[in-house]
Amino acid sequence: MSFNVFGHAFRFSTWGESHGPALGAVVDGCPPGLPLSEADIQPFLDARRPGQSKYTTQRQEPDQVRILSGVFEGKTTGTPVSLMIENVDQRSKDYSEVAKAYRPGHADYAYDQKYGFRDYRGGGRSSARETAARVAAGAVARLVIPEVTVRAWVAEIGGDAIDPANFDAGEIGNNPFFCPDPVAAKRWEALVDSARKDGSSIGAIIACEATGVPAGWGAPVYAKMDSEIAAAMMTINATKGVEIGDGFAAARLRGEDNADAMRPGKSGPEFLANHSGGTAGGISTGQPIFCRVAFKPTSSILTPVPTITPDGEATEISTKGRHDPCVGIRGVPVVEAMMALVLADQKLMHRAQCG
Amino acid sequence: MSFNVFGHAFRFSTWGESHGPALGAVVDGCPPGLPLSEADIQPFLDARRPGQSKYTTQRQEPDQVRILSGVFEGKTTGTPVSLMIENVDQRSKDYSEVAKAYRPGHADYAYDQKYGFRDYRGGGRSSARETAARVAAGAVARLVIPEVTVRAWVAEIGGDAIDPANFDAGEIGNNPFFCPDPVAAKRWEALVDSARKDGSSIGAIIACEATGVPAGWGAPVYAKMDSEIAAAMMTINATKGVEIGDGFAAARLRGEDNADAMRPGKSGPEFLANHSGGTAGGISTGQPIFCRVAFKPTSSILTPVPTITPDGEATEISTKGRHDPCVGIRGVPVVEAMMALVLADQKLMHRAQCG
Amino acid sequence: MSFNVFGHAFRFSTWGESHGPALGAVVDGCPPGLPLSEADIQPFLDARRPGQSKYTTQRQEPDQVRILSGVFEGKTTGTPVSLMIENVDQRSKDYSEVAKAYRPGHADYAYDQKYGFRDYRGGGRSSARETAARVAAGAVARLVIPEVTVRAWVAEIGGDAIDPANFDAGEIGNNPFFCPDPVAAKRWEALVDSARKDGSSIGAIIACEATGVPAGWGAPVYAKMDSEIAAAMMTINATKGVEIGDGFAAARLRGEDNADAMRPGKSGPEFLANHSGGTAGGISTGQPIFCRVAFKPTSSILTPVPTITPDGEATEISTKGRHDPCVGIRGVPVVEAMMALVLADQKLMHRAQCG
Amino acid sequence: MSFNVFGHAFRFSTWGESHGPALGAVVDGCPPGLPLSEADIQPFLDARRPGQSKYTTQRQEPDQVRILSGVFEGKTTGTPVSLMIENVDQRSKDYSEVAKAYRPGHADYAYDQKYGFRDYRGGGRSSARETAARVAAGAVARLVIPEVTVRAWVAEIGGDAIDPANFDAGEIGNNPFFCPDPVAAKRWEALVDSARKDGSSIGAIIACEATGVPAGWGAPVYAKMDSEIAAAMMTINATKGVEIGDGFAAARLRGEDNADAMRPGKSGPEFLANHSGGTAGGISTGQPIFCRVAFKPTSSILTPVPTITPDGEATEISTKGRHDPCVGIRGVPVVEAMMALVLADQKLMHRAQCG
Repeated sequence: MSFNVFGHAFRFSTWGESHGPALGAVVDGCPPGLPLSEADIQPFLDARRPGQSKYTTQRQEPDQVRILSGVFEGKTTGTPVSLMIENVDQRSKDYSEVAKAYRPGHADYAYDQKYGFRDYRGGGRSSARETAARVAAGAVARLVIPEVTVRAWVAEIGGDAIDPANFDAGEIGNNPFFCPDPVAAKRWEALVDSARKDGSSIGAIIACEATGVPAGWGAPVYAKMDSEIAAAMMTINATKGVEIGDGFAAARLRGEDNADAMRPGKSGPEFLANHSGGTAGGISTGQPIFCRVAFKPTSSILTPVPTITPDGEATEISTKGRHDPCVGIRGVPVVEAMMALVLADQKLMHRAQCG
Repeated sequence: MSFNVFGHAFRFSTWGESHGPALGAVVDGCPPGLPLSEADIQPFLDARRPGQSKYTTQRQEPDQVRILSGVFEGKTTGTPVSLMIENVDQRSKDYSEVAKAYRPGHADYAYDQKYGFRDYRGGGRSSARETAARVAAGAVARLVIPEVTVRAWVAEIGGDAIDPANFDAGEIGNNPFFCPDPVAAKRWEALVDSARKDGSSIGAIIACEATGVPAGWGAPVYAKMDSEIAAAMMTINATKGVEIGDGFAAARLRGEDNADAMRPGKSGPEFLANHSGGTAGGISTGQPIFCRVAFKPTSSILTPVPTITPDGEATEISTKGRHDPCVGIRGVPVVEAMMALVLADQKLMHRAQCG
Repeated sequence: MSFNVFGHAFRFSTWGESHGPALGAVVDGCPPGLPLSEADIQPFLDARRPGQSKYTTQRQEPDQVRILSGVFEGKTTGTPVSLMIENVDQRSKDYSEVAKAYRPGHADYAYDQKYGFRDYRGGGRSSARETAARVAAGAVARLVIPEVTVRAWVAEIGGDAIDPANFDAGEIGNNPFFCPDPVAAKRWEALVDSARKDGSSIGAIIACEATGVPAGWGAPVYAKMDSEIAAAMMTINATKGVEIGDGFAAARLRGEDNADAMRPGKSGPEFLANHSGGTAGGISTGQPIFCRVAFKPTSSILTPVPTITPDGEATEISTKGRHDPCVGIRGVPVVEAMMALVLADQKLMHRAQCG
Repeated sequence: MSFNVFGHAFRFSTWGESHGPALGAVVDGCPPGLPLSEADIQPFLDARRPGQSKYTTQRQEPDQVRILSGVFEGKTTGTPVSLMIENVDQRSKDYSEVAKAYRPGHADYAYDQKYGFRDYRGGGRSSARETAARVAAGAVARLVIPEVTVRAWVAEIGGDAIDPANFDAGEIGNNPFFCPDPVAAKRWEALVDSARKDGSSIGAIIACEATGVPAGWGAPVYAKMDSEIAAAMMTINATKGVEIGDGFAAARLRGEDNADAMRPGKSGPEFLANHSGGTAGGISTGQPIFCRVAFKPTSSILTPVPTITPDGEATEISTKGRHDPCVGIRGVPVVEAMMALVLADQKLMHRAQCG
């Protein structure tokens, strides 16, 4: 059973492969009357678009989105919003090498085991190209939660972390790494460049914060906001870990240090800390929602790796082509999109039950 | 919108609060003809049961499970299996303090914000007591996947990790910490005891491994096995992080070090490493499924913490009562249960689509 | 894949068999703060309860409901409401005959084909006893939609229909048939009695009306209110047909006769007719929601019917025991419950999307 | 909450409006390895296509389907199959009249009440044009169930029913009414023509039979095959009633006449009748699945009908344009598609639970 839908009240599904004619998303359950045009979506696709610096893949995709349904006279009608992005740069590459050997770290072997065969052109459905469709859907989600600001950044590349003291949100858009620390951004140039030149790749950690989420979204137990966020982030290609709030570091704190103490504030309760990442018992507390997501290094590398052929013979493979030396970088708009999609859903779900 | 169901083809839902008359789980979609009696479930509940050592809460709950439906002449019929556990030790405690102030780290404030009021007796639905129902459901799930062995352990307590060189699965049941490293287990006695005596608490990291999962379970994109596992683990009380395979450490590896190279083996393909934790593209590879889960320190501590009353007045609270100094310890059977529940679902979903 | 959950935002699931220790329902997604006690539920169970007249089965079940979770200090908490009804009158009947031959019209053969075996005691999960759990859940649903009045009645028994000219809602509770036409009720006494004495059974048509549903509930296409109602009614035992509004009779009208013309009214738009049964395009119009449900004659009859044994041998079977000569009669509270459950869900779903 | 997905294991969703640039369906959960090209889908779209006789609307739509994803080298990959049909004949009609008054029988008023406004061009999402997308999805579903033959026909138009004695499946394709009775087909020419000339419309009843369904598909209670079929059919535009097997007529039979008696046959059990329409307890019996669906007369008629404007003023409306005098006729391929979609889902669901 494959399923390609995410969400409960506000839902989206995506379709399409790396080398098919197009890919897209269908957004369902969107509230009616929201002003929506391609111009609301395109900037987020542009932020994710490859080929914008030498630190990302040189594949050239304009990623122009078209709205095919669900909008009338510039407003959402409450019916499905179909978004389509044509694949333009399907370079007539020779994929015979990928067809003949499993790329370690990729889904090649697993797909063959599951389905009996696979679309080997650029990874087919397992390509990170699918994330363009999420980013488009995420732009619609943002319109559902105007009270919320979602912002992600790269917090660490190849083990080199930003210095919290240098954090400046205004810097995120000023460098090719979505890095809020200009000093680290400078260091990362050499780091990423060196991985690229070595025919290797490096991983990254993305942080994401959503401010403006009121207390009360989310729900107990199997609908915990933590669980929804974790599920959402772990559907993104190359992700291998998720933390909410302090995450694994919380496991090293004492109870009194981890508790987010409260006191009366000028406009309601105030918290003295946000170790929890803005949730308690799976429900938002009114503090910023905060999570971190681990991206493994890009699996497509020039460095040869031992592997087998579909017939079980030993061989090795080096993946040529136009790949991201650090796939995590372009994960930033994707993480933002998933956070917006989760929160739009949470808002509508809360409204359903609690009015 | 609250939802209390988990899974797609093999599903379970739970109900019940800490201080109600009972709690339970309903398992739906279970294959027919599986031999099932209370004796298949009770041992797992016993492993989770409180009050078995001085390192866990002294609340005494026999946690006797009753099967109320879905079994005929000792075999599952394919219809819902209803499991009930009565709450016995509902000590007539005075909860007026909890009613009068929000316990930091707990869901008290969030519930009040969401629902307008809350069941303050022992945390109500947000109590870790709910996990007894999962453990019961998980025991049924295990019968669906006899080819799989699921095993979890505590890998770290209060920042003190086991030594992989000492790992001995046979030790897990030999100490009150589900610890596979007898040397660490010894150290943890003092560690946990000290936290308890201080009126404080400490966190833990649980590791879980499932062997015997064939290649091909799971599915791409929004049905990734990684996403399902992450969602499952993050529904457990006190969890704040999940890693699949190397998790956050993968973000610090180079591509060639992270790739799980392959070679022909005696009985099919062999992998030279398992950085991925047994999945690729969200689909199992045939390697062991491996994840780690971060548990924050117990929020119920004797140490007073500043907080507010429901009326917004400043106060402080210290949570008296019988609490786990390290709630992560009893998380071990719960993590195992969730892994079994995810995998049983994955097996049936794979069968649905791929025959 | 069995599934035993109904609904989207307001959901319920049921569990239990005819001859197990108990059966129950879990209501999930219920809004918080609704006053709820067993006294809100019991009257509806009493209306469905067998053994109240000679026209229904003589099985004696007190059908006392217990609320096991989700209520605190008399109000729903927003967490799952678990409802349990113990089976008391599990007469130690000899079911060997049912074990040895398939009862035509019953699910015996189909269950064996699907599951490989079956719980033959009183039909197991396929018993109409399951409907007690729905009726309990339906009572909770009613509290979610206080603006709506749901009322069902028997419109026809054994081909003998009520006379619309005699319709008097006040009569429904005055006879053992839920019949709004006192003249027809009189006729039905003989009709049902004769079927019973013949060891036979007869069918019935139930009508159900919900008034007070505002315009705008429901949704287009796959979420049409018509579709939800049809699905709901066709999950009830013995139902074989559903009509919304004029139903099949609409297929015999001309367009201008079927159109529900409108005109301005004192307090908003008025309709000149309600052929549509209160929906247009799957969305409520503000007119009463109206449907009709066909119940086949009870399959358990004394009259012998040719059949086969599980081994494929020819035999015949006559079903002894305490059966309803017209199972449709006791369907009235069940149809009402399902309508209330659908509408509670529709209300919350509308609120989710449209605020 | 709108939802535009149908199915559980084999699912499809549709998007698009009457007058947008395109409409489409996404089929998810499709088994891998099925040969699929546009040529497998187009014939079913052609059968539904308007403008093929004077008895249907004269709108000219080529309804050419394009497969945008999920197929590689001519076979389904197990990932979403995206199907798109461009809207070509969006005649630049003047819709100001529809904008200014609610068409009785249409969803105009209900949409406005739900969403606050509506896409009035050709009904927007509520247009029967949406059914093209279902028919495309249904063609994929047929490939999943090669063992099953699905066939629908018009059984009655404007109250004039076929004579069962004349039933000849071979005739269904020989007349513009999908009528298996050549004598009735002749009569219907005048009947439909007269409705058209009068500026009126008439209703129809469609029958559908699926042969080859093995015993054991479907499931008890809320997953009954009867419920799934009823839900599916009632999502189609203009449907107001569904019967399984004898349907409402079963409510007029005695128990012994309604029971489908069994006897041993040459190749397994045989039934002496099929009053049940191929299901018992919601599970298939191996007999043909049979249902009937009532279509109301087309709501778009030239005959003026009293109505109101969005401002609540009295007016009347006559719907000019190219409309089907009997929308039920073109419902035949749609009913077939929905039956195939339900059964493909049932097959995979059965496989999930029962292997």
